[in-house]
Amino acid sequence: MILIGERINGSFKDIGAAIKEKNKGPIQEWARKQTEAGADYLDVNLGAVSKSPEDFSWLIKAVCEVVPTPLSIDCNKLELMRAGLETYREVARSRPLIINSTTAEDSKLMPLVEMAVKYDGGLIGVVMDERGAPQDVDRRVELGAKIFAVANEAGLPPERIYLDPIVMPLKFMQDQAKNVLETIRQFAMISDPAPHISIGLSNAASKAEERTLINRTLLVMAMAAGCDTAICNVNDVELMNAVATAELILNKEIYSDSYLKAYRKKG
Amino acid sequence: MILIGERINGSFKDIGAAIKEKNKGPIQEWARKQTEAGADYLDVNLGAVSKSPEDFSWLIKAVCEVVPTPLSIDCNKLELMRAGLETYREVARSRPLIINSTTAEDSKLMPLVEMAVKYDGGLIGVVMDERGAPQDVDRRVELGAKIFAVANEAGLPPERIYLDPIVMPLKFMQDQAKNVLETIRQFAMISDPAPHISIGLSNAASKAEERTLINRTLLVMAMAAGCDTAICNVNDVELMNAVATAELILNKEIYSDSYLKAYRKKG
Repeated sequence: MILIGERINGSFKDIGAAIKEKNKGPIQEWARKQTEAGADYLDVNLGAVSKSPEDFSWLIKAVCEVVPTPLSIDCNKLELMRAGLETYREVARSRPLIINSTTAEDSKLMPLVEMAVKYDGGLIGVVMDERGAPQDVDRRVELGAKIFAVANEAGLPPERIYLDPIVMPLKFMQDQAKNVLETIRQFAMISDPAPHISIGLSNAASKAEERTLINRTLLVMAMAAGCDTAICNVNDVELMNAVATAELILNKEIYSDSYLKAYRKKG
Repeated sequence: MILIGERINGSFKDIGAAIKEKNKGPIQEWARKQTEAGADYLDVNLGAVSKSPEDFSWLIKAVCEVVPTPLSIDCNKLELMRAGLETYREVARSRPLIINSTTAEDSKLMPLVEMAVKYDGGLIGVVMDERGAPQDVDRRVELGAKIFAVANEAGLPPERIYLDPIVMPLKFMQDQAKNVLETIRQFAMISDPAPHISIGLSNAASKAEERTLINRTLLVMAMAAGCDTAICNVNDVELMNAVATAELILNKEIYSDSYLKAYRKKG
């Protein structure tokens, strides 16, 4: 399972304040904490706090300074993304990279695929377009297939393409989780080998009471369907234990009585 | 989800002793505790403690005396099963019933299907035969299709047929869990409407350290694949919470912030 730590995001109060005050402390603390918890990538996102390329560069450098963990460079503005990728490649020339994210809109898809090729990274493709996020399986799969085809054609092999079926809040769109699971099953058949299938997990439990229980239950179900990547709270120990157990059941990790410890050490 | 409480089984020390001593206390206590926890059925099984039809009748009566919960009559001897079913229909004429279980062997399948018809019950069909338990998906599905066809032909509609793909201990046969999940997906397509798909959950974590974690993770994955029935420890609160959450995600229970409580009350 590829786990992307979600915590370095300006939408969280402590990170938002740290970005504004140019205070590396909280950012570097979360970089360390998520790395220790087993994050394979750290997502970095300014949130609504800033749209400045300088701030994004500063944030990326602050993280790369203290941990060797690869980054998921996360923003929805093309020019900001380009600045972030330039910085990342300055300070971390050969580290793995995920670009988070494109949609299926032509005006975003083409430039972001080009950046993924140029900066030697993976690319998350979220299945929405100018008409918004689909409510059904067919349209999700159609947009996923489009993203896959364009990215693959431009030179990205399946292992650098991450399709995201869009997890919706269970509390407000309860019928969508089932569609997300079915979309994952169909994404897994788009090519052989399959592309990665990634979900933004925490959205599922948005505004719900039982957040961590909903998160880990959905992630386990998504893994059974073929999901192999998640942006999530890697510091949620019960979530990590559920992931380790699901990997065991899917025969992706070797059984030992102390498999939970073994999984954590690997991270 | 149809939950069958596993606890009234002579293999558990307290129940084994209670059967030997004809002490109704522990048996009736577990009948109440499992019913309160939300069991839809209570499995009753003498285990290796006795093969006497009188003992089986006594056990069934002891349970029916104190709770209105339907029973899953569980044994692997035809004559013992017949005695148990006679007793159950004496004391609980119109309660729902599950017969646990037949295999695909002709010498068991035909008589047990006839009993299910005669005693107006559902029938669990475990996908093994004279050659033992299959290790692959295809043979599991083949045996499941045979059980379904024979039972359906004899007059059992899909809603009275429970196919069991055989869960193996993860610790000793780690590659089998994946096959079980794929078998569940294929069972769900055997007919429309599909038969029930039932698993004997606790076998998965046999001799493992992290028993409850393995149990609930596997059950959630099985539910995502189409499993709708489990024989399990209904008094494991975390298991029940995982089931409630999985039902929510699959849109089978309506979301409310207090869905965990609502689910427990329903039981």
